[in-house]
Amino acid sequence: MAKAEKYRLAQIVERFGGEILGDPQTSIGQVATLESAAAGHISFFSHRKYRKQLADTRAGAVILGRTDTGLTELPRIVSDDPYLYFAKVSALFNPPQTIKPGVHRTAVVERGTRIPASASIGAGAYVGRRVKLGKDVVIGPGCHIGDGVEIGAGSRLHARVTVYPGCRFGQRALVHSGAVIGADGFGIAQDHGAWRKIPQIGGVLIGDDVEIGANTCIDRGALDDTVIEDGVKLDNLIQIGHNVRIGAHTAIAGCTGIAGSTRIGKHCMIGGAANIVGHLDIADRVVIHAAAVVTRSIERAGTYGGHPAEDSRSWTRNVAHLRHLDALRERVRHIEQQLSLPGEEA
Amino acid sequence: MAKAEKYRLAQIVERFGGEILGDPQTSIGQVATLESAAAGHISFFSHRKYRKQLADTRAGAVILGRTDTGLTELPRIVSDDPYLYFAKVSALFNPPQTIKPGVHRTAVVERGTRIPASASIGAGAYVGRRVKLGKDVVIGPGCHIGDGVEIGAGSRLHARVTVYPGCRFGQRALVHSGAVIGADGFGIAQDHGAWRKIPQIGGVLIGDDVEIGANTCIDRGALDDTVIEDGVKLDNLIQIGHNVRIGAHTAIAGCTGIAGSTRIGKHCMIGGAANIVGHLDIADRVVIHAAAVVTRSIERAGTYGGHPAEDSRSWTRNVAHLRHLDALRERVRHIEQQLSLPGEEA
Amino acid sequence: MAKAEKYRLAQIVERFGGEILGDPQTSIGQVATLESAAAGHISFFSHRKYRKQLADTRAGAVILGRTDTGLTELPRIVSDDPYLYFAKVSALFNPPQTIKPGVHRTAVVERGTRIPASASIGAGAYVGRRVKLGKDVVIGPGCHIGDGVEIGAGSRLHARVTVYPGCRFGQRALVHSGAVIGADGFGIAQDHGAWRKIPQIGGVLIGDDVEIGANTCIDRGALDDTVIEDGVKLDNLIQIGHNVRIGAHTAIAGCTGIAGSTRIGKHCMIGGAANIVGHLDIADRVVIHAAAVVTRSIERAGTYGGHPAEDSRSWTRNVAHLRHLDALRERVRHIEQQLSLPGEEA
Repeated sequence: MAKAEKYRLAQIVERFGGEILGDPQTSIGQVATLESAAAGHISFFSHRKYRKQLADTRAGAVILGRTDTGLTELPRIVSDDPYLYFAKVSALFNPPQTIKPGVHRTAVVERGTRIPASASIGAGAYVGRRVKLGKDVVIGPGCHIGDGVEIGAGSRLHARVTVYPGCRFGQRALVHSGAVIGADGFGIAQDHGAWRKIPQIGGVLIGDDVEIGANTCIDRGALDDTVIEDGVKLDNLIQIGHNVRIGAHTAIAGCTGIAGSTRIGKHCMIGGAANIVGHLDIADRVVIHAAAVVTRSIERAGTYGGHPAEDSRSWTRNVAHLRHLDALRERVRHIEQQLSLPGEEA
Repeated sequence: MAKAEKYRLAQIVERFGGEILGDPQTSIGQVATLESAAAGHISFFSHRKYRKQLADTRAGAVILGRTDTGLTELPRIVSDDPYLYFAKVSALFNPPQTIKPGVHRTAVVERGTRIPASASIGAGAYVGRRVKLGKDVVIGPGCHIGDGVEIGAGSRLHARVTVYPGCRFGQRALVHSGAVIGADGFGIAQDHGAWRKIPQIGGVLIGDDVEIGANTCIDRGALDDTVIEDGVKLDNLIQIGHNVRIGAHTAIAGCTGIAGSTRIGKHCMIGGAANIVGHLDIADRVVIHAAAVVTRSIERAGTYGGHPAEDSRSWTRNVAHLRHLDALRERVRHIEQQLSLPGEEA
Repeated sequence: MAKAEKYRLAQIVERFGGEILGDPQTSIGQVATLESAAAGHISFFSHRKYRKQLADTRAGAVILGRTDTGLTELPRIVSDDPYLYFAKVSALFNPPQTIKPGVHRTAVVERGTRIPASASIGAGAYVGRRVKLGKDVVIGPGCHIGDGVEIGAGSRLHARVTVYPGCRFGQRALVHSGAVIGADGFGIAQDHGAWRKIPQIGGVLIGDDVEIGANTCIDRGALDDTVIEDGVKLDNLIQIGHNVRIGAHTAIAGCTGIAGSTRIGKHCMIGGAANIVGHLDIADRVVIHAAAVVTRSIERAGTYGGHPAEDSRSWTRNVAHLRHLDALRERVRHIEQQLSLPGEEA
């Protein structure tokens, strides 16, 4: 990617703080991993298991923590949070791509929708009636934007995103290809052995600074809205059922499913391929392990895992027991022999 | 959504049965939840845990069960199945959107395909050769309909659905965005350390009244067809492998995977994120819990869960035991001490 | 599908080896299952549980193994590996569809990209700047090919595939609809309670002969590339995180998720709906059961399953124990009674 501008370490520290050890005039043009870095690159060191890579790196400079400054002689920036510092530096060298404003000649914009001069509508995109787009919005090629949709300033939808009618995004949304926002929730009622569909007339309401991964689905509400609060980050291939609410600044890794009407708190972290059944309440600041199956509400901040999910220490202990069940059986058999008891049915 | 026509309670009961308590002239314009409802709305009460919401609601009327009639003074419709009744009332107020017939100027229809005058082909949609569409079929913007596909009357494909060549739908199909019908099944054979692809020459055969969720995939058969029978309801992000058969009126929640050649019975309910391995037979009227991993055929109607799945009572009991293993170990240790036995290897 | 050319058994054996029993002049026009086959079809028999189907088949000929030749009197081809033999015969009768070269009038090709005369760009497809396509490449209708993408000779992307800028495919790639290659990895850093996005500036590097299923996602690398080696086969709805490396000739079934920076060895087979957490190393020739949750690196070839995954024999044994826990508890209770010990807290 990356014909980035160059910065000296001194300029970087001027922007983001931190302390320089080594030559502050070291010129940097891009970020890289310790293994791939060359002279013009800055890398970062965040875990002791990468000491060898740090020793061998050909990076021009390294970002690291206060306790690790002795591990290299390279020019380095010392930070309390090297990973966050690195995130900022990477964003400096890799600003979001500028997209030329304008409506592509092959795009279709229905009557009653006004496209701001600063917005971009890609090739083959479809924009329905009464759509409201903020400043600098980018609708990628092949996107489908249903009637009455609202998308806040600075948002970008990559190619081939679908937004059903009436869904609303805040500012600076980032949506990846294949995502489907506002399809019908799975609302059906038994009717003498067949299923009768329940119209899904709620919408989807998405806050500011939300990122939505590729092929992720967020269903519209049955009656009220499905709500994704500010700063939520969703990875790929996630399913969010109807009338779910996800609290601000919660991050959810890929392949997770959250069934209808469940409410997730703020500042939660949910591992990949987790499954959270419907109609639960998950507290703020809950961490859920990858592949956990959450079948009950969680009332307290903490870490949870397993199938069904329980607090993480119990889960770890029980799994350990499970692995030693063989030994426990042997001990019981031994006792039975000592007591001349019959033991298990042969 | 929803500039719905208004109906009086008396008119609703005339259509759907049930009994009115309170003013039969109460005028209703839309459905809503107990919490969100205003004067012109009708809501429903289906579980005692929402008593407070019922007490506080500002709805104009409520649908409820015979044993709950005393819980509110509001005008109400009494029904043996309030949820089903509500589904019917919601459909009355929210009929499917009418789509203007015609072929959008940016759609591509290949030679040899005749589009019925009542059908609608959306912007940028592609319709291949020898495609047969029934009356009133709606092909949404950006859909891809391969050669020889057949879609029955009254079906609607939302934007950006893909149907591979030769797949056949019955009447009144409802397919959500991003769904992929008829991609190759995962058929590969080992050939001296590499994989050799097995051509997937079967099709997909879908009955009447089938709903398919967003980004769900139904693979074409290897040789014979993959079959989805009448009235099946599939949620989002489901994977249906090649040569699976799903029996009539079975409902499957999101993120579930069903591997190749498995047959699911009729009237089953399968929870979200379940995984059913290949070549199994699942009986009629089987209920499978969310996140269950089904590794053996299920011969009897009943409820099953767990990893691997077993009947639901055993699973619940075993999980409970797992949680008490700690105590069981302590008891064995105590016995060993009593008997001066050595116990576990330190 | 299938107006295939006809071949006599003698011609088939001339191409692929094996031995004929019965009339070598038997004429075959297509492959079929034992149950569906008619006179002009060849079928295959690979498992004794299908003996009845073999006895009843109306196939013109059958492929089977050396020890099964006595099970039918039909003309038959004897092979050491009937399934592989069948794969070859099926490919003979079902060669890949020929797609007419040329750029559809509704496709958009940006300046600076040259489309080879032998390539095909489907209706409504978008091809960005500086894209390099090999000979005979097929870009299906509605595909999105970002700037700088490279796709090797003989590759086919079905309708509605998305490839983000800079991703590179080897030769003979086969990509199914809805797949998203090169979306941003899930890279975020905590910043005082909010999440800060880390630019994802790596790419995706895909080897030769890779198949990618419908709606599968392969994220671009954070800094270095995500790598899919030669001959890898990926089913539908799979999530491959950033900087994952998948070794040559590994096959992965649907709904599986592999989190960031994990390395999978060569010749592995991973069952459906498996979940492999990030930053692990999985050895060559590892087999992972469907729905396994892999939380630790696997250093040795073998078969692994469970949640969390362990080697398959332990998992099977522990699950069996779990099912007998009830009995074990009873035995402990009985011992306690014999010893007049108090036992569990009532």
